[in-house]
Amino acid sequence: MTDNLSSRCLPVGFRFAAGYAGLRKTPSDDLALMVSDFPASAAGVFTRNMVRAAPVELSAGSLRKSGGIARAILANAGNANCATHNMHAVSAATVQAIAGLAGIPEHHALVASTGVIGEPFDESVIPRVLPRLWEKLDRSQFEACAEAIKTTDTVPKVRYRLETTDRSDAFRLAGMAKGAGMIMPDMATMLSFVFTDAAIEPGLLQEMLKTAVDTSFNCITVDSDTSTNDTVLLLANGASGVCFDERSVGTFYNSLAALTRELALDIVRDGEGAEKVAEIRVQGTATDGDAKTIAMAVANSPLVKTALAGADPNWGRILGAAGKSGVRFDPAAMVVLVNGIKVCKDGLRAEFDEPAVQEQMEGEEVRIDIQTGGGGPGRAVVWTCDLTERYIRINADYRT
Amino acid sequence: MTDNLSSRCLPVGFRFAAGYAGLRKTPSDDLALMVSDFPASAAGVFTRNMVRAAPVELSAGSLRKSGGIARAILANAGNANCATHNMHAVSAATVQAIAGLAGIPEHHALVASTGVIGEPFDESVIPRVLPRLWEKLDRSQFEACAEAIKTTDTVPKVRYRLETTDRSDAFRLAGMAKGAGMIMPDMATMLSFVFTDAAIEPGLLQEMLKTAVDTSFNCITVDSDTSTNDTVLLLANGASGVCFDERSVGTFYNSLAALTRELALDIVRDGEGAEKVAEIRVQGTATDGDAKTIAMAVANSPLVKTALAGADPNWGRILGAAGKSGVRFDPAAMVVLVNGIKVCKDGLRAEFDEPAVQEQMEGEEVRIDIQTGGGGPGRAVVWTCDLTERYIRINADYRT
Repeated sequence: MTDNLSSRCLPVGFRFAAGYAGLRKTPSDDLALMVSDFPASAAGVFTRNMVRAAPVELSAGSLRKSGGIARAILANAGNANCATHNMHAVSAATVQAIAGLAGIPEHHALVASTGVIGEPFDESVIPRVLPRLWEKLDRSQFEACAEAIKTTDTVPKVRYRLETTDRSDAFRLAGMAKGAGMIMPDMATMLSFVFTDAAIEPGLLQEMLKTAVDTSFNCITVDSDTSTNDTVLLLANGASGVCFDERSVGTFYNSLAALTRELALDIVRDGEGAEKVAEIRVQGTATDGDAKTIAMAVANSPLVKTALAGADPNWGRILGAAGKSGVRFDPAAMVVLVNGIKVCKDGLRAEFDEPAVQEQMEGEEVRIDIQTGGGGPGRAVVWTCDLTERYIRINADYRT
Repeated sequence: MTDNLSSRCLPVGFRFAAGYAGLRKTPSDDLALMVSDFPASAAGVFTRNMVRAAPVELSAGSLRKSGGIARAILANAGNANCATHNMHAVSAATVQAIAGLAGIPEHHALVASTGVIGEPFDESVIPRVLPRLWEKLDRSQFEACAEAIKTTDTVPKVRYRLETTDRSDAFRLAGMAKGAGMIMPDMATMLSFVFTDAAIEPGLLQEMLKTAVDTSFNCITVDSDTSTNDTVLLLANGASGVCFDERSVGTFYNSLAALTRELALDIVRDGEGAEKVAEIRVQGTATDGDAKTIAMAVANSPLVKTALAGADPNWGRILGAAGKSGVRFDPAAMVVLVNGIKVCKDGLRAEFDEPAVQEQMEGEEVRIDIQTGGGGPGRAVVWTCDLTERYIRINADYRT
C-alpha cells in the first residue's frame, strides 16, 4: 500500500495515534487510539466464549446504552485484561480518560484488549499515556495502529476500499485486523476495526456487520479455539456525505463483505506456523448450516491440516473428518476435488495423477471441494491453514 | 507380564494365532486370528463415523443376525479395507474362509481392519493364509496377536484380570488394544478385543460392554478425529463355569470396566508423539453430559495440549477452552487445580508457586480438576495427552 493510495482510501473524518504504554516487554507501540471527528454509527460483534474479558463486556454494554453511537476506540496489546480482580476498573478508567479528553459521554468510547490472560494490569497505566496520544492524533497513523495491536502476528493487516456509487459519489472503507488465528498463545485475540465515511443508521449498520462477519471472520479457523477477547468494531461517521438506507445498502454491504473477507484471509495466511491457506468448499447438503459443519470439521481436523503441511492428497482423511462431523450424508455419493482435480468419486479413490496433485499442494493456496452428493441446496466455504511443527514450538515454548 | 501370569490369567477355551499376509510392507505379522473353542456370547461397539469400513458393517450385521453369538475374530493391520470398490468382497471372503475352516455359520465369524484407507486390497490374500494360521492356533499366541494389530503404536497393549467371585469361583478376562489415539495416520483405527471365560447371555453382555466403553475408550482423546474403523469386540465363552445374570453381573462389570479403562489409558500413553497423559476431571455442572462436553473441549484444545507439552500451568487456556464448549456456567465461580494445587479461584489467578507447579507438570502424569461452581451433580473424567512436534512429523511426513 503506497502512502498515496492509503491517503486516497482512508475514510474522511477519522484520526489515529499509536503509542507505548509499557504493557509489552519489548519497547514497541502497544496502544492504538482511533477517533471519529463526528459522532459515528457504531456496530460491534463479540466473542461467544462464556469467559469474556472486561473490554468485551464494557464495549457491548456501551453499544447497547448508546443505541449504536461511538466516537473513539482504544485498543491495547500486551494484556488481555481478562480474569483479574481489577479488569473492570481498568476498562472503566480507560473510557473515563477518553471521555474527559474528547468531551464525550463515557459510553461513546469503546475498548478492546489482546495479550496474556490473568496478568496484573495497573489501571493507571493507560490514562497516564492517553493525553500524549490524544495530542498525536492525525490522518497518518492508521497503519501504525495496525502495527501496535499485533501479538504473534508477523505482519500488520490493513485493507482499504475506495468505492463509487452509481451516482458517482465516493465513499471509503479502511480496516485493520490482528490475530494469528482464532487461537493464539494465552488465548489472545482476533481484533478488527473498520472505519467508513459513509452514513448508515446504527441498526442497519449492525445488521450489515453481523452478516459480513458471518461470512468472513466466522469462516476462518487456524485452530478450533475461540478467544475470550474477540472483537470486531465498525464506525460509520457519514463524513463523505454518501448515505445508505435499507434500499441502497447493497453497495455498501458488498464493499464491507469484501473488506472483511480480505482481512479474514490475511489472518489465516499469518496463522501461527502456517505455510499455506486452504479454502474448503462444501455443497450438496440439506442446509448451509450442515455444509458449514462439515467444512469446519475438515478445516479443524489435525489430520487434514498435517496432510496439507505434507502436501499429501489424502482424501481418506477428508472423508473421515466429514464423517465425524455429525451431519448425515451418503458416503457412497461423496466427491472430493483438490485444486479442481477429482481425487475421490462415489466415496472411492478416483483415478488421478498423484505426483501432479502433490505438486499443486506444495503451493501456498490449496482448494478443497467436497460434494456430499445429496443434491441439496446447502453450501459453505471456510478457510484454514496447515498445521506445522512451528505451531507447536510457538505454543509450547511461549512461557517456558 | 510374565508367561506365568499370562497363562494363569488367559481365559480358558480361547486360542490365538498371528501371521503375515503381506498387507504390511515390513515383513512382520499383520493378521490376528482369535477363536473360542465354544460358541461364545458376543458384544460389539463400533465407530459412529458416517463413513464406515466394510468390516465394521459386516461385524455389526453379523452380531444382529446371530443374536450375539460368535466363535472367531480375524483382525488385520496394514489396510483399513475402507472406501475401495471391493471392500465388502474382502470381508465376505474372509468370513467365508473362516466358516469353512471352523465349520461354523459365516455370521459367527467377526472381522476388523486397520491401516490406510482407500488402498487396493486383493480379496484372495487373507483366505490364502488362513489355513496355515488355523493350524497354528494355540494358547500362547495372545500377545503375538496384540503385536500383529499394531500400526503406529510403539508398544502392544495387553491387560489381564483374574477374578474370584464371593463363592471363590475364578474367572478371567484378557484384552488387547491398538491405537496411538483415536486419531492416527490415514484414519487408522482404535481396535480392542476382550475375551472372558465367564458365562453371560448376549443382551446383558452387550449392555455391559457399551457401559464400559462409555467410561473408558469413549473418554480418551489423542486428538479430535474419530476413525472409520473403530471396533471393540467382547467374547464370553463360559468355559470357566462361572455364570453371571442381571443380579450378579456387578462383579463381572467392575472387572470389565477396570480392564477397558487400563487399555484405554494404554492407548493415550502411546498417543502419537505423546510424552505425558493428562486426566481432566470436571464437576459442578447440571448434568454428566455437560461435564463431559467441558472436559472434552479442554482435552481437545491444542492450546491446552501444547501447554501440557511445555509444562506451562496456563490456567487461562483451560478457562478459555471450557468457555468455548457451549456449556453455560458462571466464569466468576470457576476453580482450576493442577495436580491438586489451586491455580485459578473465582475465575481469577490464585496465589500459587508457579515453578513448583511447572515441576509437577514435567512429570508423565498431570491431573487437571475443573470445578464450574454451579453446585450441580454433573461430573466427568477424560484422558488426553500432550501435543508435541513429533505428532506433526508423524502425520505430515507419513506419505511424502
